[in-house]
This record gives sequence, C-alpha cells and structure tokens, in this order.
Amino acid sequence: MGVRLSTLDETRHFSPLDAEACALPAKVTLVGAGPGDPELLTVKAVRVLAEARLVLYDKLVSQDVRRLINPAANLIYVGKQSGYHTLTQEGIIELMVRLVRSGRSVVRLKGGDPYIFGRGGEEAQALAAAGIDFEVVPGISAAQGMAAAAGIPLTHRDHATSVVFVTGHLRDEADGRGLELDWPHLARPHQTVVIYMGVATLGIVCAQLVRHGMRAEMPAAVVENATLPTQRTVVATLATLPALARLEAVRAPALVVIGEVVALQRELDPALRAATRPALAGFGLDRP
Amino acid sequence: MGVRLSTLDETRHFSPLDAEACALPAKVTLVGAGPGDPELLTVKAVRVLAEARLVLYDKLVSQDVRRLINPAANLIYVGKQSGYHTLTQEGIIELMVRLVRSGRSVVRLKGGDPYIFGRGGEEAQALAAAGIDFEVVPGISAAQGMAAAAGIPLTHRDHATSVVFVTGHLRDEADGRGLELDWPHLARPHQTVVIYMGVATLGIVCAQLVRHGMRAEMPAAVVENATLPTQRTVVATLATLPALARLEAVRAPALVVIGEVVALQRELDPALRAATRPALAGFGLDRP
Repeated sequence: MGVRLSTLDETRHFSPLDAEACALPAKVTLVGAGPGDPELLTVKAVRVLAEARLVLYDKLVSQDVRRLINPAANLIYVGKQSGYHTLTQEGIIELMVRLVRSGRSVVRLKGGDPYIFGRGGEEAQALAAAGIDFEVVPGISAAQGMAAAAGIPLTHRDHATSVVFVTGHLRDEADGRGLELDWPHLARPHQTVVIYMGVATLGIVCAQLVRHGMRAEMPAAVVENATLPTQRTVVATLATLPALARLEAVRAPALVVIGEVVALQRELDPALRAATRPALAGFGLDRP
Repeated sequence: MGVRLSTLDETRHFSPLDAEACALPAKVTLVGAGPGDPELLTVKAVRVLAEARLVLYDKLVSQDVRRLINPAANLIYVGKQSGYHTLTQEGIIELMVRLVRSGRSVVRLKGGDPYIFGRGGEEAQALAAAGIDFEVVPGISAAQGMAAAAGIPLTHRDHATSVVFVTGHLRDEADGRGLELDWPHLARPHQTVVIYMGVATLGIVCAQLVRHGMRAEMPAAVVENATLPTQRTVVATLATLPALARLEAVRAPALVVIGEVVALQRELDPALRAATRPALAGFGLDRP
C-alpha cells in the first residue's frame, strides 16, 4: 500500500503505516536546518531528523544535513527550482495536511530558522487552522552562520547597536514589481543590515542606500555558501560591491551584509587569520 | 602547581597542564550557549563543551547547559552580579589572554549568540590584536528561542518584512544617561522589533514608540525565561504592556517583542494549543 505523488519532483512510495508510527498522534515538526554546516544544527534538530519517518525538505537544506535523516525515512523535495514542476506554497501546506490526516507525522525541514524568512509562520498558521499539532525547532540563521564563519559580528558596542534582517527577494517576480524596501529605514546609521536572497538585486540595494543618505564608502560584503567548505567572502563598499560581486561571479545562496562591522572582517575572518600565521602555530611561536 | 585567582567569585586552582593539553596550540573558542534549553545548543557547541578543560561562563548560561561541560574542566564564573566583585569586560579579556599565554585553551561560553549583543565582537578583536587564535560557534539567539517557544514568528509575508534586534540596556548605567534608541527607526511599520534586556526600560520604550507614530494598539509582548520550563508570556499592546508586565512581576531575563506578528501568538503558542486540545490528542479524535 503506497501513495504516489506524481506531481512531485521525486516521486516515491510511502512505507505503509506500522504499529509504532500509529502509537502517537500524527504531527508536524518544523525544523531549522541551519546555515549549511551540519555541526550547526541544534541537538534537538538532529534528534528529530534521526527519528523522522517522512521529511519534506527545501532547496537550501545541504546534502550533509540530509545525511542526518533516518535512512528509513521517506524524503520529499519541495523546493522551488526553475524548469521543474514543483509545489507552490499552498501545495506544500495541502500535502502536509493530507499526510498528517492519513496518520503520518511529518518533519518539515527548512534552511536557517523556520521563523526567519522561511515562511514557517504561514505554514504554522495553516496547520493550526487545520487543527494539526505542530512544533517549531529553531535553527541558526544564515546571518549568524555568516557572522561566525566570515568574522563579521552582527552587533558591536562601537559600530552597531542594532541588526536588521530583510529579504532582497522580489515578493512576486512574475508581476514585475521592483524591490519595495523601506530605504530610509535601512539607511539609518549605527546598525548592521543583513539582506537575505540579495544577490540578484545587489545593484539596486547599494544604489538606493546611497541615494537615501548612507555614505558610498560604507563597508559592504557578500558571503556565498557561508559555513560550507565552498564559502567565499567579497568585501568592498556600497559603491564598489555590485561590480566586484559581478566580477567574482558570486551566486546564490549568498548573504549581503552592510555596516561598519563589515570592516572588522579584516581582523576577525578565520580564513585570513589562518593565512597570516602559517607554520608557526604548530610550534607555539605565535605566542609571546 | 596552580594559579589562584582571588579576584574571582569562584576561586579555583587550575589543573596543571598535561601532555595532551600541550599537544595543540592554545586558543579561545567563543561558544553560543543558546536561549536556555540545552537541546537548543548546536552539535558543535556540545562537542566543544564536552572536550573543554577551562570554561569562562556568563550569567545567562543556564545550569542545564553547564551540565554538558566536561566534568574534569575548570569553570570560572565571570558574569556580572550586583553585590559581588566580579570582573569587568576588560578584566575578562585580560584573563583570557593570560590563560592562553600560559598554554591553556579557553572555552568562552556566552548566552545566545556571541555575535548578537554578547560583546563577542569586542572579545574577538582583543584576541586577534593579541595574536591569539580563536573560533566562534554561533548559538540560537534568545529571540529565535522565544519565537519558536512562544509562537511568535519573527518575519511573516503579511505582517513583517524585516526583523530588528536592539538592546534596551543602558550602555552605562553609572553615568545616568537615558535610553538612546533610534525611535523613528523602531517605529516604522511592517517590521518586528525585538528588544533584548528590555524589562527595566519597558515603560520608556512603549511610550517612545507611540510618541514616534506607532499605534498604541500595536500588539506587544514580554517573554520571560523563553525556552525554559519556567517560560511565561505576557501579551498586550504598546499602551497596556508596561502595566501588565508590572502586575505580573515579569523579571529579567526577558525579551520584549513588538509588531503585528505578536497577534499570531494566540494561534501559534504551543502552550495555548495544548490547553485547548486536552485528552483528545491521545485517541486521534482531533483529526477528521
């Protein structure tokens, strides 16, 4: 007995329900998969993945994270990918509701943190409205992974008393509307601005921030594949970042970070520090 | 052979260095202890704590998290506490530098995420300036723990296209300056504002936001001990929250969260959902 989901990218037959699976009422666990490095998952997320029987996962969930899923679990890819017929947000919610009502608990695995730009709020509301039990397991957001791995603190007493996360993604690419961000708000001083999904609109963002009063020399960076072995950091200014990112062919997934704290990367980036202290470290010669 | 630190709250004798400890060059690992629930630590943080030999920890690190530290490790409490003579920020940095130069690796354990209001940026800069190797392990920030545990998404397509983290703590309580926040900035619509250490200044914050154009009926909440068994959530509006929080005797550590997303707590708070579906769940009667 299996259910075929022919509209999905990866069609699979679900395992029949067994006694163990039926012992507890079916529920959904929305799990943050963190920024990419599997060691940055929470202990709770790892436990939930190891016990999972059915996992719906997104595009931004790395392969190394997927390896932590119970090998006996059914996996369904529900991420959007151009050229493939995948599920809409409404379709994902419908599928979860249908699966839970058939008695199957679902783990919904999302990149970063489900409640920061993951549309987790919408999914949680739909589940609550359908009377379905759910739980949310937070994850290290991409911005936090980037901060630690690239050496760019998000706040700092001397440079940024607040940090703001926004998305540079167009709400609806199809309708051709421009990027509607609160520019005067983002251009305020003494804060760090982190832009999720901001590579495609990087030129617009930098130009608008300068137009709204931020100095063109404000340090700005784009970090590609933060926390993964393929991580790349491009540091520049608002004036020069768009051209430099194009030259370096930076691709999504990448975060844009703007603010005085970006200048600290020169001192704090682990990759740069390792490069300036090569063989010495092993002999303790770098210590007075 | 031991070093006595008589200025510390917890004086201890350090274990003498052994061959194992000397095999690798000494370094500092700045570790985010997350919001309180030990299951919300990252896998990497748990590994670092289990291997630690010397840990400097802050006030906001819960006892359950401290239980994950290698039992053979030396622990030094460096949090600030009124009435006790504890270390200044400069003193903590000096101590770390001294310990690393004596050949001891240090784990610096901080509540939440080291690069979000943890003064981790300052500590990292001081270590870099001293030529000391360090690494940063991000942690689930208090805001993220609160969001998942209290059912308040930080962003939401319909309600908040950005989220901003600020601190309500006075930079220097001693000099008597008021709270200098960028009020017009925080009062902008379509965002979620999370205020760390905001209980003492809650009245000022709510009044200033209304003065700068936010509607008095804007949903606002304070969440005490988020993610711990003692978690309490008080939901109100900008107009009523200060009085209600006083009535409920809300105490630090607590987060203040302001924005339309706070209204979702009614639907999404796990505690409320559990309360409305009591014995039914066990029999599957809550599913159609």
